[in-house]
Amino acid sequence: MSFIYTNIVGSFIFDKNLEMEKALLFRNIKEYFEKQQVKDVFKKEYPNLKGLPKDKQILAMTRLRDKKLYNLFKDRNMELTRLELKKSTTTDTLIMQTIASMREIDRIVNIMSKRLREWVELTVPEVSKQIEDHSKLANYIADMNRDELLQVANVKEEESIGSIFEEIDFKEIQFLAEEVSGIFELKASYEKYLEKLMKNYCPNLLEIAGANLGAKLLEVGRSLRRLAFLPGSTVQILGAEKALFRHMKTGAKPPKYGVLYAHPLIQKAKRKEKGKVARALADKIALCVKLDYFNGEFLAKKYVKEIKERFYGKS
Amino acid sequence: MSFIYTNIVGSFIFDKNLEMEKALLFRNIKEYFEKQQVKDVFKKEYPNLKGLPKDKQILAMTRLRDKKLYNLFKDRNMELTRLELKKSTTTDTLIMQTIASMREIDRIVNIMSKRLREWVELTVPEVSKQIEDHSKLANYIADMNRDELLQVANVKEEESIGSIFEEIDFKEIQFLAEEVSGIFELKASYEKYLEKLMKNYCPNLLEIAGANLGAKLLEVGRSLRRLAFLPGSTVQILGAEKALFRHMKTGAKPPKYGVLYAHPLIQKAKRKEKGKVARALADKIALCVKLDYFNGEFLAKKYVKEIKERFYGKS
Repeated sequence: MSFIYTNIVGSFIFDKNLEMEKALLFRNIKEYFEKQQVKDVFKKEYPNLKGLPKDKQILAMTRLRDKKLYNLFKDRNMELTRLELKKSTTTDTLIMQTIASMREIDRIVNIMSKRLREWVELTVPEVSKQIEDHSKLANYIADMNRDELLQVANVKEEESIGSIFEEIDFKEIQFLAEEVSGIFELKASYEKYLEKLMKNYCPNLLEIAGANLGAKLLEVGRSLRRLAFLPGSTVQILGAEKALFRHMKTGAKPPKYGVLYAHPLIQKAKRKEKGKVARALADKIALCVKLDYFNGEFLAKKYVKEIKERFYGKS
Repeated sequence: MSFIYTNIVGSFIFDKNLEMEKALLFRNIKEYFEKQQVKDVFKKEYPNLKGLPKDKQILAMTRLRDKKLYNLFKDRNMELTRLELKKSTTTDTLIMQTIASMREIDRIVNIMSKRLREWVELTVPEVSKQIEDHSKLANYIADMNRDELLQVANVKEEESIGSIFEEIDFKEIQFLAEEVSGIFELKASYEKYLEKLMKNYCPNLLEIAGANLGAKLLEVGRSLRRLAFLPGSTVQILGAEKALFRHMKTGAKPPKYGVLYAHPLIQKAKRKEKGKVARALADKIALCVKLDYFNGEFLAKKYVKEIKERFYGKS
């Protein structure tokens, strides 16, 4: 009787006294992945071949105590880890990085826009007052000089209460405006990217929840896989864990929704119906996530229609 | 005997019964600024001309109750206010806006750099590890593709633990890197601008405290004018108001320095001498600010030398 033992270094045949009879070293990690072939060859050669029992493995390992084998073992292990790491970046990670980045950028662009307004209000306050959209203001400031800006606001120089800046001072404001503009573009680019990622990865979730809310659900749920195994009732209150635990501890009212609250269908609902809509929507989202994870059909549009008809009549 | 009364609308002559004898309306606000000329003309015409006494002004004003004059008064007042506002943006404001903006940008560029590293570490972690400078990393990522980056880190594709991204994914990282790069440039531009502003406005303060610390002193002191009237002992603890009040209330140790603590000469001093250096430095800074406010000589270099010689020997 002979035993076979295989690890990432190679395949080894031991006789019944656990002496090594034969060794076949893998030349690279790829051969390890195809180890079944080697085993099949050995099986033909040794008709009574058995797997090495667990309790005998340690003893067998002592036969392999060889500097060369040890180093090979170490290197192969490193290579295997590296390969696993390479594969570990999933679409989940990308989506979560993107949504986290978008949230940061939102905050940043707000701070910078406010600072830009403070600067602008020193020299052409009338423009800042007239253009309420931060992004639009940044574009105007970046592209125009003071005179043109006054024209936009329809104010004459004598009427303006803004100070007349020297060229160099105004240029500094324009630099800031250009950056603010650039960051708005970055944000738009991320929005598109997020949608593209989700269109491939979880089209049903994208359709029923939208890019932003969908990504947030993935973030709170930690991955599409984990989300796919959650019941609708859990999806409904994702992101409201604090309120849930308060409910369980003190008997306070249970939460009706977590991140889901931002969904337009819930926003649109009457106060009394919000809970009901949330439950129905969460059930459908749970279905959508399952469809996406198991590569099912695209049914999200149908689901949305069903909810709309149930709560808001035919539309 | 006749009285003269002048306001922003015009100059008026009243007889002794306070009936209006003559009126000369200013055609614009500029004529109001040159009102002395009108007065001089009137004085030749009316040898016994006196200013209208305060107690008779209200009565005289009733003679001016005329819709036309009232509207003119209102409009001129608006114009005057507008002019004052126009002039109200001082170099103080610009310096404070700039330093506040720089502080914000510092925080922002840090947040964005960290996010950039998180992204980068998904695909070329070796580069992120090797290039510690945020700004340099952003430039590298913005300008190179993955293969070039691996070369920079001196890592072969098989050895890298980073995931291989599709073109579109990597592009998103590059967009972010470009923005980070742009914001670093904005920061550098602000630094230069701040120095330029201060070189004209407060060269002594710039020389003795540096652009950053000098601007911070202006910010805490609220203006160059106000700073110029502060004694050295107050300059020394500017920005340490909390500790000062604690000292006065509870008898805790008084603060040795506020924002001044960041000055290289204090940083360099031995622990026991820091207080002494701070006092000497604050005295000189107080002098410098006075020189700057009253357009005095440029003596800051000499002062710095004196402090250096006193505390660190000839150098």
